[in-house]
Amino acid sequence: MKILKTIEELKEVRNNITEGTIGFVPTMGALHDGHISLIKQARNENDTVIVSIFLNPTQFLPGEDLDNYPKKDEADKKICEMCKVDYLFMPDTSTMYEKEEVLIKAPNKSYILEGASRPGHFDGVLQVVLKLFNLTRPTNAYFGKKDAQQLTLIQQMVRNLFLNINIIPCDIVREKDGLALSSRNVYLNNEQRQEALKISKSLTKAGQLIGKKEFDVKTIKATMKEVMNSLDIEYIEVVNKDFEPIDTIELKNTIILVVARFGNTRLLDNLWV
Amino acid sequence: MKILKTIEELKEVRNNITEGTIGFVPTMGALHDGHISLIKQARNENDTVIVSIFLNPTQFLPGEDLDNYPKKDEADKKICEMCKVDYLFMPDTSTMYEKEEVLIKAPNKSYILEGASRPGHFDGVLQVVLKLFNLTRPTNAYFGKKDAQQLTLIQQMVRNLFLNINIIPCDIVREKDGLALSSRNVYLNNEQRQEALKISKSLTKAGQLIGKKEFDVKTIKATMKEVMNSLDIEYIEVVNKDFEPIDTIELKNTIILVVARFGNTRLLDNLWV
Repeated sequence: MKILKTIEELKEVRNNITEGTIGFVPTMGALHDGHISLIKQARNENDTVIVSIFLNPTQFLPGEDLDNYPKKDEADKKICEMCKVDYLFMPDTSTMYEKEEVLIKAPNKSYILEGASRPGHFDGVLQVVLKLFNLTRPTNAYFGKKDAQQLTLIQQMVRNLFLNINIIPCDIVREKDGLALSSRNVYLNNEQRQEALKISKSLTKAGQLIGKKEFDVKTIKATMKEVMNSLDIEYIEVVNKDFEPIDTIELKNTIILVVARFGNTRLLDNLWV
Repeated sequence: MKILKTIEELKEVRNNITEGTIGFVPTMGALHDGHISLIKQARNENDTVIVSIFLNPTQFLPGEDLDNYPKKDEADKKICEMCKVDYLFMPDTSTMYEKEEVLIKAPNKSYILEGASRPGHFDGVLQVVLKLFNLTRPTNAYFGKKDAQQLTLIQQMVRNLFLNINIIPCDIVREKDGLALSSRNVYLNNEQRQEALKISKSLTKAGQLIGKKEFDVKTIKATMKEVMNSLDIEYIEVVNKDFEPIDTIELKNTIILVVARFGNTRLLDNLWV
């Protein structure tokens, strides 16, 4: 595995790849089994695999956890090596941004749900993803379904800007007890960690109801609230794949989204129906 | 020459070009000798030449001349054919845009000069140019220096988004009497056409002063105003190549910009020192 620290190194490497498919997995580091599953899928499906680790400042709002975000460069490198990544791109912030930039503006639907709690967050996500796409010019790029709204917006960006890239959505990876993997799980104390299980339980319950042909969103939301009774729920929302809220479950076109807060930590989870 | 009407046709053509260089000239049609010089240069310097003709609505403000912009599809086709263009892309507006889009936001310096008169104009320019770049993925893209601010912003977009494209600035093409070529010149009546010569004359005068080592911007502006005495001058501005206003001419790093109005018609011209 070759570690690339500068844009020039990456450009040179990329310009010399003239054959075969390229799989790309963009990350912010602190790699966990969720990331690993993306990298393994990229490895299975492509001739060359590029992973990036870049803690992107423009997707954090003032007061968010940019400075405390878990950083595990050495462990991350070992993980990438074990997963047989070809190129690991770890640029400095200063090389990725100028003072004043051409910006990306996510559409209005980026200002609901996650975007309502984190206005501007998705502008920063799309900006860095577009930069990384242009640098790596991958055949396939891998994103987890856990960040469902992010995934939808990246798909829209690819469509709107006519990028020649396949976006591959990947299933959520969970702990054995059901907790969705997240780099932010390390912020939880033991009690919070235990309580957090109610999030995935509420989604399992929703799935069971839908299995029994309960398609009324109000009923499903009410049951989920019951399961998460003691939690500080930020939102439970049911949307179609265009992220429009719906009243009735549409099979194969519905995402149930939950965010709950544990102190300053926001945990996301969702179910793709 | 092959005319491509849909994005799918262009994508297929582009994916089948696996060798050699691609030169791209984006236009809004109503081709004149200025465009022709861009196309000829692209033809000289590349294996494949793609020209686009697309009257881009997102770069026009409400009340501007979108609906009256000169349209000469048949003449344009002939010109492209004569210039040995390989592919002419002429898409419908509906295929280029969705209702709600991921947008491009030009940096703050896009809101001075042309951007002050046409706020949002450059957002639309960058949006369509980025779409066209991603569709055509050219080696070299050709832009006239007449739209100096546009050229600077496109260069910045390429830099910020790490696009793998060379931007080739091309000299301004003029009528024999000095008038800079523009698709909007057709809006001028005879008298306006004659008066408009004062614009290029003022720039020639500025160049002569600089040749005589007059580097004081105030003096140069005053002389230019004299030459254009009877005109409705919107602005005379002297900037460096980052489009920051300067007080003293810097050789090889100065652009003198003029805009004058003739009724509803705004004519641009400039001198790259």
